[in-house]
Amino acid sequence: MKKQMRAAFQGELGAFSQIAVRQLLGEDAVPVACERFEQVFRSLKEGRVERAVVPIENTLHGSIHENYDHLLNFDLEITGETSVRIVHNLIAAPGVKWNQIRRVLSHPVALNQCLKFFAANPHLERVTHYDTAGSVKTIMEEKATDAAAIASAVASEIYGAHILKRSIEDDRQNYTRFFLLERPAKKRAGEGGGERKTSLVFTTRNTPGALFRALSAFALRDLSLTKIESRPLRGKPFEYLFYVDVLADVADAKMQKALGHLEELADFLRVLGCYPRGK
Amino acid sequence: MKKQMRAAFQGELGAFSQIAVRQLLGEDAVPVACERFEQVFRSLKEGRVERAVVPIENTLHGSIHENYDHLLNFDLEITGETSVRIVHNLIAAPGVKWNQIRRVLSHPVALNQCLKFFAANPHLERVTHYDTAGSVKTIMEEKATDAAAIASAVASEIYGAHILKRSIEDDRQNYTRFFLLERPAKKRAGEGGGERKTSLVFTTRNTPGALFRALSAFALRDLSLTKIESRPLRGKPFEYLFYVDVLADVADAKMQKALGHLEELADFLRVLGCYPRGK
Repeated sequence: MKKQMRAAFQGELGAFSQIAVRQLLGEDAVPVACERFEQVFRSLKEGRVERAVVPIENTLHGSIHENYDHLLNFDLEITGETSVRIVHNLIAAPGVKWNQIRRVLSHPVALNQCLKFFAANPHLERVTHYDTAGSVKTIMEEKATDAAAIASAVASEIYGAHILKRSIEDDRQNYTRFFLLERPAKKRAGEGGGERKTSLVFTTRNTPGALFRALSAFALRDLSLTKIESRPLRGKPFEYLFYVDVLADVADAKMQKALGHLEELADFLRVLGCYPRGK
Repeated sequence: MKKQMRAAFQGELGAFSQIAVRQLLGEDAVPVACERFEQVFRSLKEGRVERAVVPIENTLHGSIHENYDHLLNFDLEITGETSVRIVHNLIAAPGVKWNQIRRVLSHPVALNQCLKFFAANPHLERVTHYDTAGSVKTIMEEKATDAAAIASAVASEIYGAHILKRSIEDDRQNYTRFFLLERPAKKRAGEGGGERKTSLVFTTRNTPGALFRALSAFALRDLSLTKIESRPLRGKPFEYLFYVDVLADVADAKMQKALGHLEELADFLRVLGCYPRGK
């Protein structure tokens, strides 16, 4: 019998991260819920799970620097990426009908992403909760007949609730990008075919044009970037960390030369991983 | 009598944004609390306030893309910046002592930024609330004797509460950068002396090296960037919006030439504002 793969993620069962786990690893992977991001990284590092899945950026809220920091500190490898559209649904216990609902529980960020829904339904009281999926868990435990939760369809399914209204979020352009992580392997079998991306982090001294010169390593070799972001290094005024994603396999000759070139120009350089490009 | 300046911000009175209002405009400005970011921009646009203050990026959570979107849509001007260190304090009603506390209310993000404190005090129940400053308001209204809130020192002061424990956050490197906004003026008096920054947004077509060429407009003129960030344009695969902050006055001859050069290379370019560099 094949041992099932365990994948750590942050949040309650039914969180959007669990949808990312399914997209990346299929239905058979066993999701392992952790309270904090650091615990997700630690679980993988210490071998309690085989994979971890973490959000890295959101179209409305930007990059999750905390997870970039953990990527640098825990020395794990990115081996996949996927994007999940954040769809908020109004969810109630079985048998509970729309016209019974008076209270709506969810994480404040989710409540704030459904303001048009609340404006159209002013009789509904907003109740803040620690987690979107956790709010479904709570209304099921309470057997609430006057309360609903805002969460993912997966949360509704997991806790045996039902969806009263689908996709009540204000902005449909709300996507979160997730990384799949593994412990570093000596040599990874190539995925064969398909585009690959390489994620890296580097720092430069702040001399005018330092970033420009660093990017020449890629531009002069016709390598495309799909992300670039600067982040000030605290306590080191004028020094920056850069996150860059390159549309290339780290093993390609051109990319190897670009990395060699960048090493000459950067104070610090780390390849975080190479993985098939997500759709 | 001079009319007092009104400044819109998002959150309850006592929110970290109100600290930014004080840092940027002094004690005399009248803070006007709004529920949503969009309302902050709209209040300024429609003349109900003279200034607005919005968070634009955080050292742990990245850029707040929503506010960049509003900046583009509302056609307002950035005229200042400041950084606020996010300090979380444990706050209770007057007379309430530390050993009486059993419940702690706050926004889930703030609760999650004080995990070491909760690990050291496992008898405390975490209660999620819609807002940090709002949690102080609530414990004061409830005259709670067993509950405390986690919020800013300003929130404690405004609601007449008192601080039981200062600075209980896990990470002291938690800063939020705010922009001061005004309606566009025909001509703004120069601030005289001091370094100035210019924030701009542009898009390029995705040809390899397009960003590299765009940055040449600044690098070839020895102009330093203090921020660069790409953001994919949804629905337009391979097209990106770039946010860039340049350490220069928009009126400088070199900067004017750089902008002219960038206009040749970019599909879209907008200067969001020019302002004295924050410390």
